[in-house]
Amino acid sequence: MSALPSDAVSRDLVARFAALVGPRHALTDPADIAPYLVEWRDLYRGVTPVVLRPGSVAEVAAILKLAHETGTPIIPQSGNTGLVGGQTPDCSGREVLLSLTRLDKVRTVDAEGGTMTVEAGVTLQAVHDAAEAAGWLFPLTLASQGSCRIGGNIATNAGGTAVLAYGNMRELVMGLEVVLADGRVWNGLRRLRKDNAGYDLKQLFIGAEGTLGIVTAAVLKLVARPARTAVAFAGLDSAQAALGLLERARRRAGPALTGFELLPRRGLEFTVRHLPGARDPLADPHAWYALLELSGGQEADPQAMLEEILSDALEAEVAADAALAQSEAQAADFWRLRHGMSEVQKHEGGSIKHDISVPVAEVPAFLDEAIAAVEALVPGCRPVPFGHMGDGNIHFNVSQPVGADKVAYLAGWDAMNAVVHAIVARYDGSVAAEHGVGRLKRALLADVKDPVEMELMRTLKRALDPKGILNPGRVV
Amino acid sequence: MSALPSDAVSRDLVARFAALVGPRHALTDPADIAPYLVEWRDLYRGVTPVVLRPGSVAEVAAILKLAHETGTPIIPQSGNTGLVGGQTPDCSGREVLLSLTRLDKVRTVDAEGGTMTVEAGVTLQAVHDAAEAAGWLFPLTLASQGSCRIGGNIATNAGGTAVLAYGNMRELVMGLEVVLADGRVWNGLRRLRKDNAGYDLKQLFIGAEGTLGIVTAAVLKLVARPARTAVAFAGLDSAQAALGLLERARRRAGPALTGFELLPRRGLEFTVRHLPGARDPLADPHAWYALLELSGGQEADPQAMLEEILSDALEAEVAADAALAQSEAQAADFWRLRHGMSEVQKHEGGSIKHDISVPVAEVPAFLDEAIAAVEALVPGCRPVPFGHMGDGNIHFNVSQPVGADKVAYLAGWDAMNAVVHAIVARYDGSVAAEHGVGRLKRALLADVKDPVEMELMRTLKRALDPKGILNPGRVV
Repeated sequence: MSALPSDAVSRDLVARFAALVGPRHALTDPADIAPYLVEWRDLYRGVTPVVLRPGSVAEVAAILKLAHETGTPIIPQSGNTGLVGGQTPDCSGREVLLSLTRLDKVRTVDAEGGTMTVEAGVTLQAVHDAAEAAGWLFPLTLASQGSCRIGGNIATNAGGTAVLAYGNMRELVMGLEVVLADGRVWNGLRRLRKDNAGYDLKQLFIGAEGTLGIVTAAVLKLVARPARTAVAFAGLDSAQAALGLLERARRRAGPALTGFELLPRRGLEFTVRHLPGARDPLADPHAWYALLELSGGQEADPQAMLEEILSDALEAEVAADAALAQSEAQAADFWRLRHGMSEVQKHEGGSIKHDISVPVAEVPAFLDEAIAAVEALVPGCRPVPFGHMGDGNIHFNVSQPVGADKVAYLAGWDAMNAVVHAIVARYDGSVAAEHGVGRLKRALLADVKDPVEMELMRTLKRALDPKGILNPGRVV
Repeated sequence: MSALPSDAVSRDLVARFAALVGPRHALTDPADIAPYLVEWRDLYRGVTPVVLRPGSVAEVAAILKLAHETGTPIIPQSGNTGLVGGQTPDCSGREVLLSLTRLDKVRTVDAEGGTMTVEAGVTLQAVHDAAEAAGWLFPLTLASQGSCRIGGNIATNAGGTAVLAYGNMRELVMGLEVVLADGRVWNGLRRLRKDNAGYDLKQLFIGAEGTLGIVTAAVLKLVARPARTAVAFAGLDSAQAALGLLERARRRAGPALTGFELLPRRGLEFTVRHLPGARDPLADPHAWYALLELSGGQEADPQAMLEEILSDALEAEVAADAALAQSEAQAADFWRLRHGMSEVQKHEGGSIKHDISVPVAEVPAFLDEAIAAVEALVPGCRPVPFGHMGDGNIHFNVSQPVGADKVAYLAGWDAMNAVVHAIVARYDGSVAAEHGVGRLKRALLADVKDPVEMELMRTLKRALDPKGILNPGRVV
């Protein structure tokens, strides 16, 4: 503990916390602690006097009771895959890290009712597997699903590529068990599809990034497994054309439209260049591409429906070209072009990122304006905006000019953010659409939100965490 | 105002409130006020010194500012169709009624993005019509939709028969404009499908029955209009068989299953007896019936899908008999059997009602137990449990014994409620699944909820309405 700042938590207090979980599960050796202190993009590093790994809800409650009494800040962490610094302690050495990974039981699967009760430390992949074993689908789909955990998915109201049809994590949570700031446990593990008996308290904790309470378990809603899916890759002359295709697909397919992702030409070029085996499915280049997925039951025919949507769109000159996957392998290839989009940008130098959303109908106008603005700000920069067009959620990433100095380019991060976020504000959009606020965007919120909203958020924080010990300095 | 109790609001204060909306829109004549003071089942009557009918959000804000300063209780009301006394003032004469019916503009329809921004006083029917005009569907469907209004639908998190596929009102609200207890206005009228920039404040106000803020406008989510629907009426030997049929339909049809309603034999008999033109679609009597609806796009064939589901269920002896509607008129007839279910019970004497939900898979066991319990409590009573089986939400109504005294029977309302709600509690169910808490079930909540949940609710109420002026004595 010699590396800790002088105002760190006292040895005595660390010992009291450690006693609550037992010495085996209170990590103080720097080598044991290290993996908890760095997140995977290495944007945040912190220190902590102790990593507590409780094995039960009662232990989490005991930790928070002591933290409340002693005013000790607690940083909850589950899969440590967050992108905004919400799960990493700061450098004060005062923040105690509470890892939820030992709460990893699937408590029950209700195969008849289509629900599942799981603890916060269960990985998203394990939830997928348990749902499949019971003949259901848990639709939340993230690139990190092998390592991210349900507690974090709930705390950040996770999104992904299936939101269009199934909603964010919020829509998939039926009930919660939460340890409150003072150690009281709220048991809201209901399996009810309708319940208007008082305030819907679970909504408070979903997406609050651990600042209002610590989620220890949840009841999740399962959905029917589609018997068949169909996937297509369409070439488009403009983002406006992509919107037109989206609207046609939504009106025609309704809830059967389970994916609509946007990719720019430059993104596809990066992918073909850097992703082994990737190739352009279409003969000629197009300014934009859309990946469409339809899902259906046994009697529905998503392939025929998608074929109709595409042939109509080609005839109406909304789409310029399209390829309909003829096999599962080809469908997987199309999805790989989309899923590789983040990774391949690393090979093109520095990338300045924005996780924004605007109303769906405004995506084309927003893109035109934001692309022009960043190109004016940094001549030669290479915008690669892509993502969940069906949700109005665009990962507006901008790669550095070819041959530019990476460090110098990345030094302009905040300046570019300011330009893009100003445009987002004019479209009544969000500057934290999918990844949350954490530490990365906390200061930003006050700039973009009206004072009444900021006051309301602070009112809630004070009411539920009067001592400010739950993930302090995050979100609000 | 001679009928008001002596501690009523002073004439001077009434005049100050009236000045905020102008004399034409401040009703004090008892004849003008009367329609606002009685709800349609006539279970609640109240008095008020003045009915305020603001014509703008600014006027609502000015009213709440004055109410906050003077500690005057405000009862918000929109369509006055609530069933739990939430919208009716009490008899103290101290409560000022704030009617939102003049805020009745559809502000914008975003046909490209599939959203609509409406004021609180717009009727649900007008929302349906505006959505249809733009080529979309607003799926919330209630018997009262000609008179209920969006503000009330949001405040009570309304349900209805389309929840199975589209969710409650909560899932259909994208943004809100809310006047807070002290008159501040929160503008959260976002049209974003993804937004994790801070706490999701709108969730606080949806379903809070006007106790945490007054909703003045909302952004609603529109969905694709299904090109075709298919409806069937199935006869079943048991509620367990209904659950089996539901599970088959959900797994096979997924999101295409847009309705699954349960009716008991006795309910069908009441309907055939009292609803003009109603007839039993099946040749032989069955203990239970399910009404199924599937919806699909142009290429999907819900009729064929439903036929497959039914023939499989008949073969597996899950269903005893079934009729598939062969025309829109026949489909409407089937739905009429369901929609008449509340009305026809009036012809059979007194009815003691319970608006409950349990986990979907527990519905059969709950029904067996609750039916046996009320029959033991009141020999000869006639249970008519019906409703939204797909949501686990049963309107557990019990008609009086044939020939019994209605008043004497209804005097046993609380005693029967206690018996049924105790069973609901054992199934981790809700005693206010769809209609809310209001005044009717406020005292009940403390009996059925754990103390931590009650404390959390009171914490929120104190934080957002410190003077307790917003719909006091309702919910919490």
